[in-house]
Amino acid sequence: MYSFKNDYSEGAHPRILNALLESNYEQEDGYGEDEYCRKAAGLIKEKIGTTEVDVHLLSGGTQTNLIAISAFLRPHEAAIAVSSGHILGHETGAIEATGHKIISVDASDGKITPSHLRAVLDAHPDEHMVKPKLVYISNSTEIGTIYKKNDLVQLREFCDKNHLILYMDGARLGSALCAGENDLELRDLPAIVDAFYIGGTKNGALLGEALVICRDSLKEDFRYHMKQKGALLAKGRLLGIQFLELFRDNLFFELAMHANKMAELLKEEMCEAKISFLTDSPTNQIFPILPNSVISDLEKKYGFHIWKKVDADHTAIRLVTSWATKEEVVLGFIEDFKKILQRIA
Amino acid sequence: MYSFKNDYSEGAHPRILNALLESNYEQEDGYGEDEYCRKAAGLIKEKIGTTEVDVHLLSGGTQTNLIAISAFLRPHEAAIAVSSGHILGHETGAIEATGHKIISVDASDGKITPSHLRAVLDAHPDEHMVKPKLVYISNSTEIGTIYKKNDLVQLREFCDKNHLILYMDGARLGSALCAGENDLELRDLPAIVDAFYIGGTKNGALLGEALVICRDSLKEDFRYHMKQKGALLAKGRLLGIQFLELFRDNLFFELAMHANKMAELLKEEMCEAKISFLTDSPTNQIFPILPNSVISDLEKKYGFHIWKKVDADHTAIRLVTSWATKEEVVLGFIEDFKKILQRIA
Amino acid sequence: MYSFKNDYSEGAHPRILNALLESNYEQEDGYGEDEYCRKAAGLIKEKIGTTEVDVHLLSGGTQTNLIAISAFLRPHEAAIAVSSGHILGHETGAIEATGHKIISVDASDGKITPSHLRAVLDAHPDEHMVKPKLVYISNSTEIGTIYKKNDLVQLREFCDKNHLILYMDGARLGSALCAGENDLELRDLPAIVDAFYIGGTKNGALLGEALVICRDSLKEDFRYHMKQKGALLAKGRLLGIQFLELFRDNLFFELAMHANKMAELLKEEMCEAKISFLTDSPTNQIFPILPNSVISDLEKKYGFHIWKKVDADHTAIRLVTSWATKEEVVLGFIEDFKKILQRIA
Amino acid sequence: MYSFKNDYSEGAHPRILNALLESNYEQEDGYGEDEYCRKAAGLIKEKIGTTEVDVHLLSGGTQTNLIAISAFLRPHEAAIAVSSGHILGHETGAIEATGHKIISVDASDGKITPSHLRAVLDAHPDEHMVKPKLVYISNSTEIGTIYKKNDLVQLREFCDKNHLILYMDGARLGSALCAGENDLELRDLPAIVDAFYIGGTKNGALLGEALVICRDSLKEDFRYHMKQKGALLAKGRLLGIQFLELFRDNLFFELAMHANKMAELLKEEMCEAKISFLTDSPTNQIFPILPNSVISDLEKKYGFHIWKKVDADHTAIRLVTSWATKEEVVLGFIEDFKKILQRIA
Repeated sequence: MYSFKNDYSEGAHPRILNALLESNYEQEDGYGEDEYCRKAAGLIKEKIGTTEVDVHLLSGGTQTNLIAISAFLRPHEAAIAVSSGHILGHETGAIEATGHKIISVDASDGKITPSHLRAVLDAHPDEHMVKPKLVYISNSTEIGTIYKKNDLVQLREFCDKNHLILYMDGARLGSALCAGENDLELRDLPAIVDAFYIGGTKNGALLGEALVICRDSLKEDFRYHMKQKGALLAKGRLLGIQFLELFRDNLFFELAMHANKMAELLKEEMCEAKISFLTDSPTNQIFPILPNSVISDLEKKYGFHIWKKVDADHTAIRLVTSWATKEEVVLGFIEDFKKILQRIA
Repeated sequence: MYSFKNDYSEGAHPRILNALLESNYEQEDGYGEDEYCRKAAGLIKEKIGTTEVDVHLLSGGTQTNLIAISAFLRPHEAAIAVSSGHILGHETGAIEATGHKIISVDASDGKITPSHLRAVLDAHPDEHMVKPKLVYISNSTEIGTIYKKNDLVQLREFCDKNHLILYMDGARLGSALCAGENDLELRDLPAIVDAFYIGGTKNGALLGEALVICRDSLKEDFRYHMKQKGALLAKGRLLGIQFLELFRDNLFFELAMHANKMAELLKEEMCEAKISFLTDSPTNQIFPILPNSVISDLEKKYGFHIWKKVDADHTAIRLVTSWATKEEVVLGFIEDFKKILQRIA
Repeated sequence: MYSFKNDYSEGAHPRILNALLESNYEQEDGYGEDEYCRKAAGLIKEKIGTTEVDVHLLSGGTQTNLIAISAFLRPHEAAIAVSSGHILGHETGAIEATGHKIISVDASDGKITPSHLRAVLDAHPDEHMVKPKLVYISNSTEIGTIYKKNDLVQLREFCDKNHLILYMDGARLGSALCAGENDLELRDLPAIVDAFYIGGTKNGALLGEALVICRDSLKEDFRYHMKQKGALLAKGRLLGIQFLELFRDNLFFELAMHANKMAELLKEEMCEAKISFLTDSPTNQIFPILPNSVISDLEKKYGFHIWKKVDADHTAIRLVTSWATKEEVVLGFIEDFKKILQRIA
Repeated sequence: MYSFKNDYSEGAHPRILNALLESNYEQEDGYGEDEYCRKAAGLIKEKIGTTEVDVHLLSGGTQTNLIAISAFLRPHEAAIAVSSGHILGHETGAIEATGHKIISVDASDGKITPSHLRAVLDAHPDEHMVKPKLVYISNSTEIGTIYKKNDLVQLREFCDKNHLILYMDGARLGSALCAGENDLELRDLPAIVDAFYIGGTKNGALLGEALVICRDSLKEDFRYHMKQKGALLAKGRLLGIQFLELFRDNLFFELAMHANKMAELLKEEMCEAKISFLTDSPTNQIFPILPNSVISDLEKKYGFHIWKKVDADHTAIRLVTSWATKEEVVLGFIEDFKKILQRIA
C-alpha cells in the first residue's frame, strides 16, 4: 500500500536530518534566539530580497494562521476566506477560538477576487456586524490552483483602497512557486502581501513554517503572541536548522519541483486517458474524476482521499505528491491505472 | 563558554535522532494517528500501569498547559497556582488568553498545600468572583523542590472533597522522580492527579510532552482542543518516535538520573565550601547564593541565570544540569569555583 | 414622520413605568437577588407550568445569546443557525468573540429543519472541524415566520438522537405565540427546547429578556457567566419589576396581540391591493414587495427599513408594528398607501 | 431594617423617572443613536470642557470595564490594578475572560503609584511574560479613598514615559469629586487620563455609566465593541434620558454631595466616640472598626457589610450612603449607635 494521501507522510529530507545530527551537541539559547534561527531568518530575507521584513519560525499551519490572524486583528475585526479555505473547514474553529469570525465567500477555483471582497464590504456596513479586515488566501490553494501575479496585484490594490490586510497561507507555497504556469517569485511578495508564510512541513521538513511579516504595523511584539499561544519551542533551533538547510541552496525549490513533476506525470497520463479533473491544478495536488469502480480497484494498492461525489458513477479523488514521492512508484501507479481502465473498458 | 542556563541547550539524545533516521521513509498517517504515536501511548500506559488513561503527545509545556487547562475548565472557572508557578509568570498570560484567571498563592518552597487551597476557596464564595476549580502544581517545581507522595495524597483528598481538579505540570517530572528523596512513582499518579504531563523537551527529546489524562470526565474530545490550538502536528510521528525511544527501556529515567547526579556533584562541593542555597532542591536546578564577586568571575567562563538578589553582597544564581551535561565540565566548574573562592578568601 | 422601523422605538408600557415609580424607594438587594426578580421568576415559572426551570433576567438579546451560548458550549463546540439568524449577521460576531464558530445553513423561510442538521453533522465528522453542538432558532424568526409545534418536536427528536442542544431566541416570542396560525404555548417549551428566552424589550419593556433554562445540565453556575459578561445589573430590580408587571396578568400577551393585529391590518389591505410579500409572516414584521416609486413616496411620511432588492423595479421593505403602534396611524398609512397606488396606476 | 449595604438599594432619583415618563411615547432610533443619547453626550462634553472626547453610555461598571479594557489592549497586553481593585476581585474574571491578565499590586490605601508601576515594568521585561499596558485606577477607590490631582498628574507622567494607558473607573466618581479634600474637576480629566467613566448607577440612575474616551487612538470603532459584548441597548434612550437629566443642571453633583454629607455625619459622630476607621475615606463609603458586640446589636436594625476582621474583638464594617439616604435615618442610626456604646461601656 503506497499512500498519495498527503505530502507529510514521510519524515524529513535526509539533508535536514543530517543537519540536526551535526549540530546536536552545540549549546544554543532557547526559544528561537539561537544562531540557527537568526541565520535562517537572514537567509530567508536574502531570498525574499529585503531585510525590511520580520521572519518567525513556527511549527505548523494552523498554529501559524491562528497566531498571525489573532495578532493582526482587533476584537471586532473579521477575516474573509473562500469556503474551501483551510481556516474555514480544517482548523477546528481555531480562528473563531481567538474571537474572530471568518466571512466565507464561494469560489469554484478556490481563489478570492476583488469582487468577492467588494460584496463582503457592502454587506458589512456598520457596527451591528463584524468589520471585515483581513483577506486570507492560500497559495497554492486547498484545491491545487495558484494565484498569478496579476491576481495578487489586483487584490493588493483593493486592500490598499479599503484598508484591508492581505495574508497568504503558504503551506504549499513551494509547490505554487514551482508550478509551470506560475509567474510569481518570493521577492515579489513583500510588495504584494502584508504577511505570508513559507511552508516547510509539506515540503521536506519535520515541521516548520516561516512566517514573514512585511507590513511594519503588524510586526510589533509578535514574539509575545507566539509565546502566549504555546508556539515558542524551547529548542527553537529545531526550526532554525531546518529552514537554514532548506534555503542554504535551492533545496526548498528542488523538493517542490520534484513534487510537482510527479503530479504532472500522473496528470499527463490521466489526461491522455480522457480523465477530467475537478480543478485545474498545476501543483502537487490533483483531483481526477474517476469511475467509482476504478477507485475501488485503485484503493486496493494505493492510499488517497475520496474528495467529492461528482455523479452517481463518478467521484473525484485527491492525489498528493511530495518531495518523497518516488518516480518508480508513480510509474507503477500509472501502469496499474491503465490496466484497470482497460479492464473496465 | 559553557552554559548551565537550562536543560534545553542541546539537541536530542543520539538514540532519538537515530530513531528518526531509521523511520524516516516509512509512510505514516498524519496528526498523531500513526503507528509510533499509538505505540508510544501504549508504552507510556504500560509504564504508568493502567490503560485507563488517555495519552496525547504535544510540543511544549506552555502549549500543553494552555490546552489542558482551557479544555478542563468552564469559562467562569479559575486555576490556582503558587506565585512561582510557570503558568503565572513565564507563559505570557497563555491561560488568561484562553479566558481563565489564575489565582496566585505564596509558597516559599514552591509547593501548594491544602491550607492554601482552603484560603482560596474561602475568599471566593460567590458569583461575583471566579470559581476556583483547577489546582496547578509542578513537579519538580520551578525552584527545584519536589512533592513527596504524601503531599500529593493530601492535595488529592482536599480536591476530592471540594470538587477540584488536580493537574501536574511535569516539564521536569523525570528529574523529580529520580531525585534522591523522592518516594513517588509514575504508577502512583493516576490515583492521585486528574491529569499530568511527562516532559520530554527538558529530558532529552527535541521537543515533546506526553499529557496523561486520568479522570474520565476530562478525556472527551481532547484532540479537538489540540487541533483548535494548533498543536496537532502534521507529522505527529515526530513526537511518537521520540517518546517511544525514551520509554522503550529506561532511557527517560537514565537521562534524568544523570542530570540530577551532575547537579548533586555541584551541590556537594558548594555545600562543602559553606555555600547556602535559596531552595532545598534535590533535582537538576540548584540555586546557590554566592558573593557577587564570585558570580562576576564565574560569568567569564560559564553561562547561568542570575536569579535573585539576596543582600547587598550576595545573589542567588540558577545552575541547571541536563542529560547532556558532561561530568568533566562539572568537575572543571568545581575547580574554577574553588579557585575563585580561594582568591577572594 | 412615523416610524415602522422596529418595535423598540418608544419607551415602555405605562404600567411598567408606573410599577417603577411605585417601588422606587423600597430598598432591595442588588444584582438580581431582590424580591421583584424572585417574584418575576416565580411568575414566569407559573406561566410555563413548571418549577423545574431556572429563570434569569438579562438586558438584551445579543447579551442573552452570547452568555447562554458561551455558557452551554465547550471551546471546540459550535452553534448552527440559518443564514438569516440574528447571531450570524446582527450581533457583530458576539458568539465568535466568545470563541465559538457558527455554522450557517440556508433556509428561505428562516427556519431550521432536521435535514439541515443532518447535513451539518455529516460535514463535520472529526476533530479537524468544530463539533456542531447547539441549534439556534428564533421564534418568530428574523423574517417574521414562526415555528409550528410539530416543527419543534421534530427538531427535538433530532437533537435528542444526536446529543444537540436546542436553544430558542425569543426576542419576539410574544408575537410568535400570539400569531393566528400558532399552535405553541409557553408551557410546551420546557419539553421541547433546552433553553429559550422571552423577549421583553420588543414587547413593551424598557429593556429585559427572561432566559429560561430547562435542561438541568445547563443550569449550574449560570449567574457566574452573567456577572463575568457584565450582565448582572446592580439594580436588578429594574428587570424584575418589569417582568412582574408583564406577567402579573396577561399584559405580555395583550401587547403582542396588539402588535400582530396592527401588522395584520397592514397585510390585509396590501394583499387586497395585490401586493406580494417576501415571506409568509403572521407576526409583527411584514415584508411587502413594492414598486420602487411607491417606496419613495411612502418614505416621505413613514420610516421603515429597505430590506432587499427584488428586481429592477421592486424592493421588499420591512414594516414592524409594536405594542405602541396606534391603530389610527396604521389606518392613515393604509389610506396614504392606497392613494399612492392610485396615483401610479 | 434599613440598609447601608450599598448605594444602589433604591430605584432612581424621581427627576429621572419623570424624564422617562415624559419622553415615553416619542419615537427614537435604537441602539444609542437617538436624540437623548446625542444630547447627553454633548452635555457631558460641555461639563468636561472639550468636544475632543468620545462619550458612550453603558449599563454597568463591569460591562464598561470589560469592554473598554478589551478594546484598548492587544492580546498580549495586561492591565495593572491594586489588589482591592474592582476588576480583580469583584467581576468574576471578566477581564481575563476577554483574554487579558491583570497584574496585582498591593496598596493599603487602595491607590496605585508610579513606584508600583516601576516595579511591575521591571518584573516584566520580555515576551515570556505579558506586557503591562493599562493602568486601572478607581476614583473613589473601592475603600473610599480618593486620588488628589497631583497623584494623577504623577501617574500620567509615568504613563507617558512608559507608553501606558491610564484608565479610571468612576463608578463612584461623583462622590470622589464632591469629597471635602478633593481638588480634581471633571474638566481636568481629559488631560490626565486616557479614558474614564462617570458612574450613574451608584449616583441616582436606574442604570448607566458614561464612558469618556480621551485619547484619539482608543476611539476608533468603539461601538463595535459595545455591540459585540451585548452592551448596545435597543432602547438606548433609556441611558441618554438619564444622563441628560443628571447633567442638565447640577443634579449629578448634588446627589453625590448628599451621599458624602450623610457619610460625613456618621463619621463625625463615630470619631467623637473614639472609633477608628480602616481607611481614611472622605467619600460615601466608610469603614469603622467596631467591637463585635456593637456590630451584633447594630445588625438587628441595620443592614451593612462585614468587611474585615481586625482583631479578636474588633471588625471593620462598611457603611455606604447614597443620594437616597435620609438624614433622619442617619440621625436615628447615630442615636442607636450611641446607646449601644453606652450599654457596653
